[in-house]
Amino acid sequence: MIKVAINGYGTIGKRVADAVAAQPDMEVIGVSKTSVSAEAYIAKERGYPLYIADLGKKPAFEKAGIEVAGDVEAMLKAADIVVDATPGGVGEKNRPIYEKLGKKAIFQGGEDHEVAGFSFNAHANYNEAENHQFARVVSCNSTGLVRIIHALDQAFGVARVRAVMVRRGADPDDVKRGPIDAIVLNPASIPSHHGPDVNTVLPHINIVTLAMIVPTTFMHMHSIQMDLKKETTREEVLKVFENHSRIGLVRKTMGIKSNAQLREYTQDLGRPRTDLWENGVFEESVSILDGKEFYCFQAIHQEADVVPENIDCIRALMGTVKDPQESIRMTNEALGLVAIG
Amino acid sequence: MIKVAINGYGTIGKRVADAVAAQPDMEVIGVSKTSVSAEAYIAKERGYPLYIADLGKKPAFEKAGIEVAGDVEAMLKAADIVVDATPGGVGEKNRPIYEKLGKKAIFQGGEDHEVAGFSFNAHANYNEAENHQFARVVSCNSTGLVRIIHALDQAFGVARVRAVMVRRGADPDDVKRGPIDAIVLNPASIPSHHGPDVNTVLPHINIVTLAMIVPTTFMHMHSIQMDLKKETTREEVLKVFENHSRIGLVRKTMGIKSNAQLREYTQDLGRPRTDLWENGVFEESVSILDGKEFYCFQAIHQEADVVPENIDCIRALMGTVKDPQESIRMTNEALGLVAIG
Amino acid sequence: MIKVAINGYGTIGKRVADAVAAQPDMEVIGVSKTSVSAEAYIAKERGYPLYIADLGKKPAFEKAGIEVAGDVEAMLKAADIVVDATPGGVGEKNRPIYEKLGKKAIFQGGEDHEVAGFSFNAHANYNEAENHQFARVVSCNSTGLVRIIHALDQAFGVARVRAVMVRRGADPDDVKRGPIDAIVLNPASIPSHHGPDVNTVLPHINIVTLAMIVPTTFMHMHSIQMDLKKETTREEVLKVFENHSRIGLVRKTMGIKSNAQLREYTQDLGRPRTDLWENGVFEESVSILDGKEFYCFQAIHQEADVVPENIDCIRALMGTVKDPQESIRMTNEALGLVAIG
Amino acid sequence: MIKVAINGYGTIGKRVADAVAAQPDMEVIGVSKTSVSAEAYIAKERGYPLYIADLGKKPAFEKAGIEVAGDVEAMLKAADIVVDATPGGVGEKNRPIYEKLGKKAIFQGGEDHEVAGFSFNAHANYNEAENHQFARVVSCNSTGLVRIIHALDQAFGVARVRAVMVRRGADPDDVKRGPIDAIVLNPASIPSHHGPDVNTVLPHINIVTLAMIVPTTFMHMHSIQMDLKKETTREEVLKVFENHSRIGLVRKTMGIKSNAQLREYTQDLGRPRTDLWENGVFEESVSILDGKEFYCFQAIHQEADVVPENIDCIRALMGTVKDPQESIRMTNEALGLVAIG
Repeated sequence: MIKVAINGYGTIGKRVADAVAAQPDMEVIGVSKTSVSAEAYIAKERGYPLYIADLGKKPAFEKAGIEVAGDVEAMLKAADIVVDATPGGVGEKNRPIYEKLGKKAIFQGGEDHEVAGFSFNAHANYNEAENHQFARVVSCNSTGLVRIIHALDQAFGVARVRAVMVRRGADPDDVKRGPIDAIVLNPASIPSHHGPDVNTVLPHINIVTLAMIVPTTFMHMHSIQMDLKKETTREEVLKVFENHSRIGLVRKTMGIKSNAQLREYTQDLGRPRTDLWENGVFEESVSILDGKEFYCFQAIHQEADVVPENIDCIRALMGTVKDPQESIRMTNEALGLVAIG
Repeated sequence: MIKVAINGYGTIGKRVADAVAAQPDMEVIGVSKTSVSAEAYIAKERGYPLYIADLGKKPAFEKAGIEVAGDVEAMLKAADIVVDATPGGVGEKNRPIYEKLGKKAIFQGGEDHEVAGFSFNAHANYNEAENHQFARVVSCNSTGLVRIIHALDQAFGVARVRAVMVRRGADPDDVKRGPIDAIVLNPASIPSHHGPDVNTVLPHINIVTLAMIVPTTFMHMHSIQMDLKKETTREEVLKVFENHSRIGLVRKTMGIKSNAQLREYTQDLGRPRTDLWENGVFEESVSILDGKEFYCFQAIHQEADVVPENIDCIRALMGTVKDPQESIRMTNEALGLVAIG
Repeated sequence: MIKVAINGYGTIGKRVADAVAAQPDMEVIGVSKTSVSAEAYIAKERGYPLYIADLGKKPAFEKAGIEVAGDVEAMLKAADIVVDATPGGVGEKNRPIYEKLGKKAIFQGGEDHEVAGFSFNAHANYNEAENHQFARVVSCNSTGLVRIIHALDQAFGVARVRAVMVRRGADPDDVKRGPIDAIVLNPASIPSHHGPDVNTVLPHINIVTLAMIVPTTFMHMHSIQMDLKKETTREEVLKVFENHSRIGLVRKTMGIKSNAQLREYTQDLGRPRTDLWENGVFEESVSILDGKEFYCFQAIHQEADVVPENIDCIRALMGTVKDPQESIRMTNEALGLVAIG
Repeated sequence: MIKVAINGYGTIGKRVADAVAAQPDMEVIGVSKTSVSAEAYIAKERGYPLYIADLGKKPAFEKAGIEVAGDVEAMLKAADIVVDATPGGVGEKNRPIYEKLGKKAIFQGGEDHEVAGFSFNAHANYNEAENHQFARVVSCNSTGLVRIIHALDQAFGVARVRAVMVRRGADPDDVKRGPIDAIVLNPASIPSHHGPDVNTVLPHINIVTLAMIVPTTFMHMHSIQMDLKKETTREEVLKVFENHSRIGLVRKTMGIKSNAQLREYTQDLGRPRTDLWENGVFEESVSILDGKEFYCFQAIHQEADVVPENIDCIRALMGTVKDPQESIRMTNEALGLVAIG
């Protein structure tokens, strides 16, 4: 059993914790939290040992009826590997601690590539992880782009990608961030940083990205165009997606035409926390124009798509499973991830 | 086993179906749908026999891979009782069919009181149901009001209620309804119709309600003020709520101060469809001013709070369980409803 | 003086009416309204004779203190030309009336091209209007696309256009339409109908468009990519825009990075109804990649950009001004339209 | 001519500047800005001398084509009185500077009462201002409450006020603040601080306030209930409002039932920046229940209602006009403020 510590029990951390707990070859040895909150009660509910950064706050936790197992360093010491799910930029500050303790660690996409020196996606570069102490699971948007670009690149070759990302403004429970009524260029300059981020995993891909932020909380929506190297048909592209274990197809007959309706569907399916772990490609949108020009819309659940990637990344860094497809299969089976469609 | 048909498998119907299926003394003998949709796939996923209004659409369902068990009339005939969860106003049109077939039926709050002739709330008037063929579970807002007013009326007597309801504009998956950026008076005249609706269950309560619609999807928020007949303290009021099986307390230590954060919490709890079946009273807001003036904020999950009431209403109409508290206990236990807090 | 009737005094009609009234060669001989509303009070405030469809409603208007000049047919008879600004689809029903009365008429983009048989944009095809009885000013989105595509096509040649339109969900005062929290594919299939609509004005342009709807009210945002026929530089492209009387540049130093901030700026400028009549191209976004690949973001004010086009279309259909640049100059001067930047 | 300096040229400052410039007895001698922005361009457009806090930034302004008149201290020295419209909390830091320079100053509602030691509303306590060096114009919400409470208190006596304020989440151009999809209790405890703030102007009023924040940008909406001391009728109350120069009535015939539609109306009226300077009381909502219980909804334009109050406060502090009604009349006339309805 791989002993996993979750440093940062928030939007991503709480999901990774449950995903780890569901795996046959891993266990959650602790999660960390800086202050009393609803999520601390959830950690207690789940039975995860709760560690805190500042033991001076222990009385506040205990007053709220939440037991504290110790400080974060104690948790880290007990772990084989750390999933750092702290807010963007904090991972960089934590890295020296992991180095000092000699612990393997996984950072999230809120950190720069350089913090880990290696950026990860299960389908694209699993086997490159083995000799690294650190890895970074690229951001939700980059993960979604890497999956679909890599799949089509393997099948048909990709000459150029042009993607417009319409991003959710805040997560559903983040009541402070806006915008309320605006489309915000993010950034106003072109291209955005997302293309170079995709290149940390797929260095040879020629990609231009643009991004806006809009007042929605449920999922990002990508409009993707790729110039393919080989001519193909819509049917062949759909087959590639059908055969991909982390690309789902939102079938036309379902009548789902928005991120909100897609989230309702994953909720109805009983997915934990309504998570869409896979890319949500809208079947109706999948188009090949002029033989080589691919188009589609895909929904990316910002809270969820990196969760299975973190699980695979644990195995890849630990070296316990050599075959990426085997790890992906194990992860998906344990989560109950059968791509929609 | 009470054979229950769910006529209308939408926002409420799909929740009631799962709640019925979870009870030890009931079974879902069918659900109905008018056209192919994501929810039809969910009915299939759950294994509920699917009936359709117009058999002419059977080929469309079958083409989408969804088996059709028959037409709606066949479903109704096979049932002991029907939960009518069709859109507001359709229930009225369905009533003659239920009369013709001699079936008991439960309508939702989108219908007028007169459609059923009896309006229901489990805590307030369970035992009045027995001799009725029809009952109406009052709307989400009225259910939330009735629960808290009845609880305080039993404990302290209520001389007057003044409630301002800030309503969600649309359900999360309803992408057509607004407003996008507005506070809409609904209605602009005072009082709103909610007070009289509460009076269909609690006729003696003196109540004035006001309502607005705002651009949110998660839950309604009620601001409630009551003039109590007896002096009391905040602590005694909190005790009343703690002892009520369908009033939850959002504890101050949780740091939850909005409907969105509360929904994140029920999602983290693993509640099916993130449902808050109980009233979500904010502990911090519970106040007694000048000895007799009660104030609080409560969140009401428009999709969920009527679900357990429908279950109790089934037993009440069927006469199979005489004691309201016993039915409430059975319903809550089967759902896993332990009021938060 | 050209006698102009405005049939439909709503979002577009009220703006066109004021724009007509500001021109030296036109006058508003009447506006029409179907029922008493805030806009009827505004018509009275402005002193526009108000005509109504159904004289039976005259008492309701008079009770509200609003004088009625007569019925719509009387207004039409008194006009040289009609600007039909009725809701989408109503124009088609009105066309036989204009034919019967032998009146020239201008329809809006909510009507199909076939309703007028000729689709108009001042910069692109002013001189083709002269022999037509009817013209259609293309929709706000198409007008915005036509302006920028035509400008670059004239300067550098355009081989292919790929545009992703992120559309506002509703106008600011439309409190019924959503979405509240969703990104809606509109349509989910690719391409959208906007490309063919651009082709009604610029038939030779090779264009693929995609569209989504988001919860904002202020302006649409276009992400545009064009393959140019000639190599060029960012500076040359900026010069084209600077020299275009209906393309504005949102300068980087202004710090405006959203539709909301741009609207605040036009409001601060004192523009009537905060109207951005020109395209709002974000200077910072204007990019030439690899010599021939153009990119930019542009904001399109859905309520405003067609207003000056309607004015020019009046002159073009009436044949009173032969030179498009002269009409555009007259229109802009009367409105005070000096493109931002 | 009173020489007025506007320290802070943002949402409030730019409106107060234009209002000052419109008065016959005042002039804007300068406005201040900390960095280059769209508003700096507007100051230039209006011809207001622009002063900056840090002269080191002068080159940045000049590069953007904006002339700098000097530093803020130079502006303050040249003024008879300062309107401090800096962000909340900055006014407190500025106070010692005003003291040092011996300048009268007006703070906004973002500052605590203690910063000025005197809180102002033109109708309620104009004549108390004269011997003060400093005054604070209470916040938009408090101004709106004070106006209506004072009016009814004068007419009928007010025994108790209960107000629920549903607040806009952010101003239209503030794209960073949320919430996007939430109703946020602000605060979750009851009562909110607004009641005590009203008491800084009307100390004898017995008032309980509650507040929530919702995802809208246009205006706040107040639900107000008052126990009156004398019996009255709806008609008498409407007369009080009709006779009040800063309480407008949104007439039922206008069909306006939301803050968004009300803002469209002020925009159509051609009000500068669409400003609703007066309270917007919804005629239809004005109710008297049981003879003494008053109810209504009122819209409060957060950006605008304090603007005329600042103008009156200038005269009150300077002592140039002794009669409040005369100052109010002058202010309203110069602004073109004729209360709607």
